[in-house]
Amino acid sequence: MEFKIQQLQIKAGKYKVVLNTEDAKELGTRGGDRVQLKDHSYLTAIAETGDMIPKGSVGVYQEICEKMGKVCPLTVDIIPTSRPSSVAFIKKVMDHQKLTQEEIYQIVQDIVRDNLTEIEMAAYVTASYIHGMTSDEVEWLTRAMIDTGEKIEFDTHPIMDKHSIGGVPGNKISLLVVPIIAANGLLIPKTSSRAITGAAGTADLMEVLAPVELNAEEIKSITEKVGGVIAWGGATNIAPADDKLIHAEYPLSIDPYNQLLASIMAKKGAVGADSVVIDIPVGTGTKVPTTQEGKKLARDLIELGERLGMSVECAMTYGASPVGRTVGPVIEVREALKVLETMEGPNSLIEKSTALAGILLEMGGAAAKGRGKEQAVETLRSGKALKKLKEIIEAQGGNPNISYQDIKPGEHKAELPSPADGYVIEFDNKRIIEIARIAGAPIDKAAGVWIHKKKGEMVKKGDPLITIFADKGWKLSNAMKNAEKDFPIIVEGMLLERVQTFRVV
Amino acid sequence: MEFKIQQLQIKAGKYKVVLNTEDAKELGTRGGDRVQLKDHSYLTAIAETGDMIPKGSVGVYQEICEKMGKVCPLTVDIIPTSRPSSVAFIKKVMDHQKLTQEEIYQIVQDIVRDNLTEIEMAAYVTASYIHGMTSDEVEWLTRAMIDTGEKIEFDTHPIMDKHSIGGVPGNKISLLVVPIIAANGLLIPKTSSRAITGAAGTADLMEVLAPVELNAEEIKSITEKVGGVIAWGGATNIAPADDKLIHAEYPLSIDPYNQLLASIMAKKGAVGADSVVIDIPVGTGTKVPTTQEGKKLARDLIELGERLGMSVECAMTYGASPVGRTVGPVIEVREALKVLETMEGPNSLIEKSTALAGILLEMGGAAAKGRGKEQAVETLRSGKALKKLKEIIEAQGGNPNISYQDIKPGEHKAELPSPADGYVIEFDNKRIIEIARIAGAPIDKAAGVWIHKKKGEMVKKGDPLITIFADKGWKLSNAMKNAEKDFPIIVEGMLLERVQTFRVV
Repeated sequence: MEFKIQQLQIKAGKYKVVLNTEDAKELGTRGGDRVQLKDHSYLTAIAETGDMIPKGSVGVYQEICEKMGKVCPLTVDIIPTSRPSSVAFIKKVMDHQKLTQEEIYQIVQDIVRDNLTEIEMAAYVTASYIHGMTSDEVEWLTRAMIDTGEKIEFDTHPIMDKHSIGGVPGNKISLLVVPIIAANGLLIPKTSSRAITGAAGTADLMEVLAPVELNAEEIKSITEKVGGVIAWGGATNIAPADDKLIHAEYPLSIDPYNQLLASIMAKKGAVGADSVVIDIPVGTGTKVPTTQEGKKLARDLIELGERLGMSVECAMTYGASPVGRTVGPVIEVREALKVLETMEGPNSLIEKSTALAGILLEMGGAAAKGRGKEQAVETLRSGKALKKLKEIIEAQGGNPNISYQDIKPGEHKAELPSPADGYVIEFDNKRIIEIARIAGAPIDKAAGVWIHKKKGEMVKKGDPLITIFADKGWKLSNAMKNAEKDFPIIVEGMLLERVQTFRVV
Repeated sequence: MEFKIQQLQIKAGKYKVVLNTEDAKELGTRGGDRVQLKDHSYLTAIAETGDMIPKGSVGVYQEICEKMGKVCPLTVDIIPTSRPSSVAFIKKVMDHQKLTQEEIYQIVQDIVRDNLTEIEMAAYVTASYIHGMTSDEVEWLTRAMIDTGEKIEFDTHPIMDKHSIGGVPGNKISLLVVPIIAANGLLIPKTSSRAITGAAGTADLMEVLAPVELNAEEIKSITEKVGGVIAWGGATNIAPADDKLIHAEYPLSIDPYNQLLASIMAKKGAVGADSVVIDIPVGTGTKVPTTQEGKKLARDLIELGERLGMSVECAMTYGASPVGRTVGPVIEVREALKVLETMEGPNSLIEKSTALAGILLEMGGAAAKGRGKEQAVETLRSGKALKKLKEIIEAQGGNPNISYQDIKPGEHKAELPSPADGYVIEFDNKRIIEIARIAGAPIDKAAGVWIHKKKGEMVKKGDPLITIFADKGWKLSNAMKNAEKDFPIIVEGMLLERVQTFRVV
């Protein structure tokens, strides 16, 4: 049937049209069915039905006009067509039937090409979440995620990489690990993410120092030039299926285990990594509450690495407390840079960074077995790591002459004093992140939480437990109210009730 | 934050806004999150994010402006808010945890109020499909579906009702059952559906004779006046959750078993039915392939009826072959009316209609135990059923003087002759429905398929197997091509290959 085109001034995120309910009946088309639009060539679109489009017209979202050419045609011929075959494969997942490698590839390809409706995407992630996957299926999913995106191929090997499972505030170790590895002559093209539910992702941190929106070509050339890079993966087209899956998972608050494995390893596979160290923070409040679960995750990551030809080592780390004492982009960078410049700083940060860097140095053959950590500490102490980070900053387009003292937290700040003398007996990571986010992190880079007292430490009544920084007074005030209502840090003997003792400093 | 309102000239089917990606970050809002719009009062909307809305503006779909008043305000204050609690209950379903009655009610209420996103709806139907439900949960779901819609309350009892599980072409028996019951002094307010994937629903059939888009008040008053009605349930607000669930299930080609039970019984409960007979067609090509599955379905329906205070009897019927010899609105009505007027017509139709009517007559106390069918046949033979149907037609606003001879099938027709002598050994219900739909049914009411030979019958080479009727020549031609490509009826000894022998008659 021929339809008059009515341009809808809005994007749908995919090829989508709206048909009048009567016309749709005539075509035998229902919401979510596919139609072909015949102009010069065929374009397949998702059909919705509704009464705001008059009979004989078809509402087309912006993507369709863009695809059809500069000037959208006035009319178009529309023919019902079948759903993508991947919809039938998603049904198989729902019915707990095993998929073939081709079927999984087809699903991932249709996800990447925006060929699936939100209902189909949601059914896929829900069914995957409920039924899980076999090891074969996880491998095929990972390979499909790699192959449906951009890949970086280096001429020199080995390529090293590092990943953290996340969930721990203040985990700024990549700022130390990457330059330590690169300073030892190994290549480490680190792609990283921005915080989604956290207070600062590695990409948010690095952006304080240099641009991070690099494409795959830039990542490759900078890595080849200075040995390392810290880029935002979202600016590349590496494993693009991951973001699309998250779009359907986030609203359901799910993070299917096997997709987590595939997502991590696909990003490493796409940059051609040979050796990968994975940081698994374990403990209350992290994504991995117990050591047992941490061990299972480690085994599964190592096995998946083997299947993909990557050498993987996992390090379980203490995750119940922040790494270092800062949470929020600017103050985390300040803390990391201070360690690089002076070797002064929190033990938890220095120990964790050099331990993970040490594993990578041994895996890459740059340090003898058992000597990696020592060498990492030496790289740090000698100033070689700092020099390398400056080279990386400069190569990415930042100012290499920056010092930690130049990096200033938000001008609005307030301290939360301890209401009692005693030891810190409870420390709530999630609340620290929440307060940092309300203060503006990660969007307001200078917002964050400085932690004065961690679990087990002694505090005197009136001494500050945390300092909150913010760019905007109203955000500081909201964060203060939130912190007061439910203390993120509990001191032995303090009253567990509302204590209005914030002081603006 | 205050935003400039940009009206989107399109409906979303729910309260929905689009925020600029940067603004959304600032608010800490992601796609699928909820925001509150503060105008005079608060309105909760689903937020999407995108770059086609400029910073500082919010795109609002039509429903929001309509809700906010005749003139949409120029600006609006937007505050992030939490998701409806039913999203957490859907997560429980995904995790296979039992729900309470209140939690199920909350989910159904949010479904009816369009408070859930497509992703949340899809997760719910997918998880329900995979995990199933306990008997308690099915009962609570049914009660919630009844209570979140319109209910009809009769002063006189008992109220009789009838339902067919469907899947059999030509199942026009309600046109006989309803007048037989009403002619015996019982009340039967039958709501029915239009065909979704079939060739003709009961509502499509009745519409050939009289208007079927009646509201609940009209259904009540017509039933009280003449004893029966055959209305389209979709015109009422009875159990509205059902249609919304189907909207998410159809694209996934799923029909979760427990939702089927709840949907059937909610519609009966909402009209205040005391006694219900349910027709379960069993056999290849139906929704219930085996007698075993039919028995389980019957037991579950009877148990659910007991829980809801309804007396339910189920009749398993032969479903592998059409009821009567016609498929498509007009020709089905012609066949049914001919039986009512002359008692001449296919045995399968007369037998099935009177058997089911007989059960209802006994359940309602209008016939002695074991004498229901006999009495139903007598009601038919005496002309009382015809007289009653005419009263119902007139009460619904149709022409009571219509006779079967006045009802004409589509003017374009073609016969498919048998390519061989022999017995019909295969008969494909689904193909018959497909051909009728391609010919135009159910939208083109006069389109359909007349079946000359059913399974086991003898046919001579050249004798017609089916006649296809259509309103439009091109649809007839498409239906013919489809039938030729893959014969719906296989005659012993015929070549199973393409035989181009259609003749336009």
